[in-house]
Amino acid sequence: MPSHLLSIDALDRDAVDHLIRIAGRMEPIAQRRKVTRVLEGAVLGNLFFEASTRTRISFNAAFCRLGGSVCDTTGFTFSSMAKGESLYDTSRVMGGYVDAIVMRHPEQGSVAEFAEATRVPVINGGDGPGEHPSQALLDVYTITKEFARLGKPLAGAHLLLTGDLKYGRTVHSLIKLLSLFDPLRITLVSPPGLEMPQPLIDRVASRGHRIEIRPSLADDFSDVDVIYATRIQRERFTTEMTESFQELTADYVVDRGFLDRRCNASTFVMHPLPRDSRPGANDLSVDLNGDPRLAIFRQTDNGIPMRMAIFAHLLKVEEEIDRDLRDVRWYVPETFGVDDPAL
Amino acid sequence: MPSHLLSIDALDRDAVDHLIRIAGRMEPIAQRRKVTRVLEGAVLGNLFFEASTRTRISFNAAFCRLGGSVCDTTGFTFSSMAKGESLYDTSRVMGGYVDAIVMRHPEQGSVAEFAEATRVPVINGGDGPGEHPSQALLDVYTITKEFARLGKPLAGAHLLLTGDLKYGRTVHSLIKLLSLFDPLRITLVSPPGLEMPQPLIDRVASRGHRIEIRPSLADDFSDVDVIYATRIQRERFTTEMTESFQELTADYVVDRGFLDRRCNASTFVMHPLPRDSRPGANDLSVDLNGDPRLAIFRQTDNGIPMRMAIFAHLLKVEEEIDRDLRDVRWYVPETFGVDDPAL
Amino acid sequence: MPSHLLSIDALDRDAVDHLIRIAGRMEPIAQRRKVTRVLEGAVLGNLFFEASTRTRISFNAAFCRLGGSVCDTTGFTFSSMAKGESLYDTSRVMGGYVDAIVMRHPEQGSVAEFAEATRVPVINGGDGPGEHPSQALLDVYTITKEFARLGKPLAGAHLLLTGDLKYGRTVHSLIKLLSLFDPLRITLVSPPGLEMPQPLIDRVASRGHRIEIRPSLADDFSDVDVIYATRIQRERFTTEMTESFQELTADYVVDRGFLDRRCNASTFVMHPLPRDSRPGANDLSVDLNGDPRLAIFRQTDNGIPMRMAIFAHLLKVEEEIDRDLRDVRWYVPETFGVDDPAL
Repeated sequence: MPSHLLSIDALDRDAVDHLIRIAGRMEPIAQRRKVTRVLEGAVLGNLFFEASTRTRISFNAAFCRLGGSVCDTTGFTFSSMAKGESLYDTSRVMGGYVDAIVMRHPEQGSVAEFAEATRVPVINGGDGPGEHPSQALLDVYTITKEFARLGKPLAGAHLLLTGDLKYGRTVHSLIKLLSLFDPLRITLVSPPGLEMPQPLIDRVASRGHRIEIRPSLADDFSDVDVIYATRIQRERFTTEMTESFQELTADYVVDRGFLDRRCNASTFVMHPLPRDSRPGANDLSVDLNGDPRLAIFRQTDNGIPMRMAIFAHLLKVEEEIDRDLRDVRWYVPETFGVDDPAL
Repeated sequence: MPSHLLSIDALDRDAVDHLIRIAGRMEPIAQRRKVTRVLEGAVLGNLFFEASTRTRISFNAAFCRLGGSVCDTTGFTFSSMAKGESLYDTSRVMGGYVDAIVMRHPEQGSVAEFAEATRVPVINGGDGPGEHPSQALLDVYTITKEFARLGKPLAGAHLLLTGDLKYGRTVHSLIKLLSLFDPLRITLVSPPGLEMPQPLIDRVASRGHRIEIRPSLADDFSDVDVIYATRIQRERFTTEMTESFQELTADYVVDRGFLDRRCNASTFVMHPLPRDSRPGANDLSVDLNGDPRLAIFRQTDNGIPMRMAIFAHLLKVEEEIDRDLRDVRWYVPETFGVDDPAL
Repeated sequence: MPSHLLSIDALDRDAVDHLIRIAGRMEPIAQRRKVTRVLEGAVLGNLFFEASTRTRISFNAAFCRLGGSVCDTTGFTFSSMAKGESLYDTSRVMGGYVDAIVMRHPEQGSVAEFAEATRVPVINGGDGPGEHPSQALLDVYTITKEFARLGKPLAGAHLLLTGDLKYGRTVHSLIKLLSLFDPLRITLVSPPGLEMPQPLIDRVASRGHRIEIRPSLADDFSDVDVIYATRIQRERFTTEMTESFQELTADYVVDRGFLDRRCNASTFVMHPLPRDSRPGANDLSVDLNGDPRLAIFRQTDNGIPMRMAIFAHLLKVEEEIDRDLRDVRWYVPETFGVDDPAL
């Protein structure tokens, strides 16, 4: 694994397995039973040139839980960039201030360009339509944890990806990362016009995975192990399709009825969040709240141990953690959510 | 006391006394003679969807002084809420990231709705016209500290509340909290149209307190122990009254002359701040700066120990603090303000 | 040295030497070989009422590297100031929350006014056209470090200041600070209309320094030890000059060719940054990137130890640091930049 985390394309199976293993060792800290101070004195530059409160706080909290401090920057521009400063200069200057950098930027490729000027580890926190590797890693980590919990092997598993498979960045990254694993069965269901790009399908298929496309959710999915649902954004439709947005998307809603009738008792549901809960949005249904099959909050919780693992790995402290654990002294609730099911 | 702090209505006398007692034990840390690290490793999510620099920094500093780390969010929207995410989802996600949440939001009830989805302690940092319980608690803490300093019993004390008693959120919360204490004498003075709502007066009176309404400050207040002055906002007046804002409000200004002529030597003055010092604002007068009777900066200083107490109580570390104190090693001035009077 | 750092005019030679000496002792921490926790429990209020990401993060990181915590405020207004709160009140309130304050504000004099109300140390992080003392101190620190590295005495050194010498705040502060040192030779080169103000020249000359003005860079500078280049802002020119901005400024560009042909092998180049790298900006050339004579990133790196020294001095912990050092446990790259030359 290189000294930055810019794209999942730079990760091989060993690197992914290593990060999953470290994330597992971070769980006692992420679940607030233990405290470590291994990064005490280290400073993270958390540079968000595009709003993403969830991702920013997740990285921030992960770094703090390792004992480090965080300098946040939010807003659409770095003030010196507005004066004509190059990404090269900004990067080199920041590298002199902090020990690691997370950068989110609306322009594809800008994070990689930024990383070229510094030897301080840079993590891509999302570069527009480009990459968001920590999301893909926490998704794969979630899948491996859920399979382990259910006592099922991942090899040969059946995944259903549904929603916007054309523009959904997370689902592209996820399928690329999954393609590193032992052969899987992957079924794709999307509204017309929002299909998974063919080159990506070919790439995954060429690695021995079985990809199947089905026209709708009105089918038998009783052997599906995981559903990964993504939000369909109205603005992705053509003008004429936008008018019939509700009818077109209503057939792609994953809800309790779909799980009960079409899937099996242990099928679990993921989603990259945010979930659009407004009436008519036809996103993943809120009627699943509290249902153990809804894994979306376990998934977002997993962002903390995975991001801790990424920091620990890039800063080479993964072997230091176990030597430096103390018990948490403050109150930690049994579950973080009021509706979290007992598993 | 419940696991959140959303409204002072949920507090009984025991809970208030307990918080006041813990706040007192926080003083050596708040006054920077001692350092504790009891919350080392804990993370606060400080979510300010409405600007309030003072309150945000006060909560932030209080959490840091207990040894924790803070993730700040400022700005009018949480980026994922803009994409249709429900308060339920946002709350559950944040609960997976942090150990305590302070939330300020312009909409009444939104903080309570947010708190319903998570078991992580949520503190209401102000929800529009709704509640701001930590302000009321620090106000009551200030009153008890000042009475103790002056060697006077609180029971039977005479309080003068003046200014905007209709819209002033802090004065409503304060009077509700004070109503839990032994019978007091409370005098209300406000410009016409800005009177304290009658249901609130009835509620306090029903608990045995003696409430008196007087038309103006041109009276004898020589037995008043505390004056709580609030800012009168020009936009609260009707159009015709706005034109005569200066004349109408000039009669309600608390200044050195008023204290000297109408009150007694130990009457002290509080104010929720900010104080409008612009010419013609007719807010609490700056001619009291440096006067020991002006308690407004002691009051704002008290925000730190009270907010530390709230965190310590909700996170159940109040009994851990005394075991974990070290001396401060850096320079701390004798007083924080240049005009702070010796008391 | 007073209890605030508001202007370099308040510094004498002893104070500057003291800060340079402390900064030197901060190097192992700033270069991330050692960790200190001497300010553990202390809180910095980092109040930026004007955007300056670089300066804000530099102060923030410096305070964190001493073990403290930081409350950041960015944006054009402090919310309570918008409601008419005076700088006096804001300052006194903040002084009750935090242990040190860095303030940047667009209005000249506002930071000094703010500092008048509190005994908590206030550092001027830039007040519009006014002062930015930490920049001048890190510039002088850089010059002394570079001379020491080159084995040359500073006394009698020859400095070339070029670019906008009229409006460039940093170059004014630098020359004032340098005037405290043993006699130097200072050559000034600027486009017509952007000359160094005469009173400043007189002040420096009166302290025994030899000041020379030359019309352009087309000259022999082979005995120059340091070049301090500043950005020429198009908006500083008169309308008619703006039209010929490119021709007028092209003669004042410091680049590799200028250094090779007109200077000597050890002449090094400084710049306050940001450097405008857009085509036609005619700022310090990027063709020097990676050249050991380009000292601009060593200069910006020096902001960390100098700002640590300022905090350590104002908070009187400079003698505590050496007793409290631990080894860094995380990965630190050999150099922070990919192009950093071996020296």
